[in-house]
Amino acid sequence: MTMNTFSTRAFGTEAPEADLKSMNIQRREVTSKDVEIDILYCGVCHSDLHTARNEWGSTSYPSVPGHEIVGRITKIGSGVTKFKVGDLVGVGCMVDSCRECDSCKEGLEQYCENGMTGTYDSIDKHLGTHTMGGYSERVVVDEDFVLRVPANLDLAATAPLLCAGITTYSPLRHWNVGAGQRVGIVGIGGLGHMGVKLAKAMGAYVVVITTSASKKEDAMRLGADEIILSTDDEQMKKNAGTLHFILDCVSAQHDINAYLRLLKRDGQLTLVGAPEHPLPVAAFSLIPTRKSFSGSMIGGIAETQEMLDFCGQHNITSDIELIRMEDINTAYERLLKSDVKYRFVIDMASLKD
Amino acid sequence: MTMNTFSTRAFGTEAPEADLKSMNIQRREVTSKDVEIDILYCGVCHSDLHTARNEWGSTSYPSVPGHEIVGRITKIGSGVTKFKVGDLVGVGCMVDSCRECDSCKEGLEQYCENGMTGTYDSIDKHLGTHTMGGYSERVVVDEDFVLRVPANLDLAATAPLLCAGITTYSPLRHWNVGAGQRVGIVGIGGLGHMGVKLAKAMGAYVVVITTSASKKEDAMRLGADEIILSTDDEQMKKNAGTLHFILDCVSAQHDINAYLRLLKRDGQLTLVGAPEHPLPVAAFSLIPTRKSFSGSMIGGIAETQEMLDFCGQHNITSDIELIRMEDINTAYERLLKSDVKYRFVIDMASLKD
Repeated sequence: MTMNTFSTRAFGTEAPEADLKSMNIQRREVTSKDVEIDILYCGVCHSDLHTARNEWGSTSYPSVPGHEIVGRITKIGSGVTKFKVGDLVGVGCMVDSCRECDSCKEGLEQYCENGMTGTYDSIDKHLGTHTMGGYSERVVVDEDFVLRVPANLDLAATAPLLCAGITTYSPLRHWNVGAGQRVGIVGIGGLGHMGVKLAKAMGAYVVVITTSASKKEDAMRLGADEIILSTDDEQMKKNAGTLHFILDCVSAQHDINAYLRLLKRDGQLTLVGAPEHPLPVAAFSLIPTRKSFSGSMIGGIAETQEMLDFCGQHNITSDIELIRMEDINTAYERLLKSDVKYRFVIDMASLKD
Repeated sequence: MTMNTFSTRAFGTEAPEADLKSMNIQRREVTSKDVEIDILYCGVCHSDLHTARNEWGSTSYPSVPGHEIVGRITKIGSGVTKFKVGDLVGVGCMVDSCRECDSCKEGLEQYCENGMTGTYDSIDKHLGTHTMGGYSERVVVDEDFVLRVPANLDLAATAPLLCAGITTYSPLRHWNVGAGQRVGIVGIGGLGHMGVKLAKAMGAYVVVITTSASKKEDAMRLGADEIILSTDDEQMKKNAGTLHFILDCVSAQHDINAYLRLLKRDGQLTLVGAPEHPLPVAAFSLIPTRKSFSGSMIGGIAETQEMLDFCGQHNITSDIELIRMEDINTAYERLLKSDVKYRFVIDMASLKD
C-alpha cells in the first residue's frame, strides 16, 4: 500500500551552507489516529540552526526545522478521540516514540529506549523518509503527540513553551523545586528566561546567575528575586552554599565548579544547555557535601500538557520577537550573537503571503 | 583552667619527607563526656599517606594519622551514658562536629556546616592544638563520636569499616540500592572491595568494572555477579544502559563518560574516590537520559553505627593484611603501588612491644 500524501509549502535548506528558502514538501494524508494542523506560529530553537547547518553531523536534506509549533486542527482521522477540527493545539520536539519500552510506559517518551521520533530530522515511520518540522504550512501528527493549548495565552508567545518551556519545566518538577527553596538559573536566554518565570511560579526564591550586569533589570522583570554576577568573585564567594538547585541553561563553555560551589549540601545542578566540549568537574566539587551534576532533556507528553496547563493558570508565556518566515536567515545570524529577547517566533501567515 | 593531659606512645612524622617513627604525644584526660580507648587495631587509609606527606598542603606536624580505629574502653568520664569500661568500640574519621547546624541536626555530621573535627589534622577543640589519629596507644573521644563494634566480627578486619566501610555504605543507602537493581562498582581496592560486599548484602546484582582481567576471580569471590572489563570496548558497548547505580571508587584519573554510558535512564554515578585533576564530563553523557554524576563523603555517626550493625548481621568485614606498626613506611610504599588486598591494618600491640 502506498501512502497518500499532499504537498505543502515549507521553508528549509538543501545543504549545510545554504540559506533556508521556500520549498514544497510532502506530508501524509491523515491516517486513523492523525490530526492535520494549520501551523500559525513556530518558535526558533537553537537546535533548528544546528540541524539546518549539520552541526551535529547527521542532518538529512532537504531539512525543514521547527519544533515549537502552535496551530489549528483542520482535519482529523476517523479514530481520533482527543481532538476535533478547529482546536488550538501544539506540537513540540517529538511526533512519535516506540510506546512499548519502560520509558514510554512511564510517560517519558523523550527517553524512549528505541529512540523517539523527532519532529524534524528523524526517520519518518509513515513515509520512510525523514521528518520535517514546523517551518511549514501544515503538519500531520499522531494525536498522542499533540498538546492542547490554553485559550487564555497569546498564541505566538505560547509556541516556545513547546521546547524552551518544557525543557526548563521538567527538571524543575523532577527535582521538586518549590516554596522555601532558593533556585539558581544560570544564563538568561531562550531557556533561562523561561526557567526564571517557571521557578518563580512554582514558589521558589529565584536567583539569576549571569555574566552580564546589564541583564539585572531584565532578570528582575522576569521574576528573579536576586541576581549574582558570576564575574564578581566577591559575590560568588558570598553566595557559596546558598542554593538548593541550579538550572544551567548555558550552552557556551563555562566553569561548572564555580556554580557547584553555590549549591547547598545535597544540591543538584542540572544542565539543559549543551556545551560542545566536556566540562571539567573537580571531585571536590561533589564529594564534600554530596552534590550532584545532572542533565535533563525536554519532557514527556503528559508532562508537556501539564506544563501548558500550568502556564495557562499562571499566565506564563515566552518573551518573543515575532518575525516573518523570510527573515529566518537573518534571525539565525542574530541567534548566534544572542541578539534576541528571548525567542524568535515565526508568524507562519508570512509563508502563505 | 588548663586541661590535664597524659603522655601516650604514637607513630607519626615530623615533616612531609620524613618517615613515620615512634614518638610520644599528649592526650587530654577524659572529661565528663569522654571515653579513653586502648587502641587494638588501626586501618591504613590512603588519606593517612596524603596527610603524612602534606599532599593536601594543610598538614600540621607532628602528624599522627589513622582513622579506622578499634579498641577497648579503659576509662569513662562521669557523664558518659552510652558506654562502660571494657566495651569494644570504634572511632572513624570524625571525633566532633558543631552539633548545631542543619547537617549535624540531621545526623550528617560529616557535612557539618561549620566543619567537622577530623580524627587527625583538625583543630583540637580541647587542647587548642591539632588532633592526632589512631596510630597510637590510646585515644580520648567524646562518646557521641564513638561506635559500638559487633561482637561476632574479627576485630582487626573490622577496623577498615570505620572509613572504607561507611564511605561505600552511605552512598549505597542514600541512593536506595537494593534488590532488583544492577549496581556497578568501579575499582577493586580498599573502597571498592567493601562496595562489592555491601551492595551484594543489600540484595543488588553486583557488576564489577575493572581495568584488569586478573581481578575477575577475586571480584567473584568478594560477591560480584558479573565483571566488565573496561579496557574491552566490546564489553563496554554491550553493557551500555544496563546499570541503575555506579559507585566509583577510583582515585586515579579516568574517563567518567565511559562509565556514565553504562547507566540506565535516571542512573546515578557516585564518586567516592577523589582523582586529583578535574574529570571532563560531556553534556551528552548526562542530558539524553537524565543521568547524574555525584559525590559522597563517609557517613554520619548514626549511619556508621547502622553500617556496623549491618556488617555484624551479614558477617561482613574487610579483607586485610595485618602489619606491625614499624612496617608502616613500607606499607605506604606498597599502598602507592596498590599492592595490598585490600587494606593494611596495624596490630597496635606492636607499638607497645
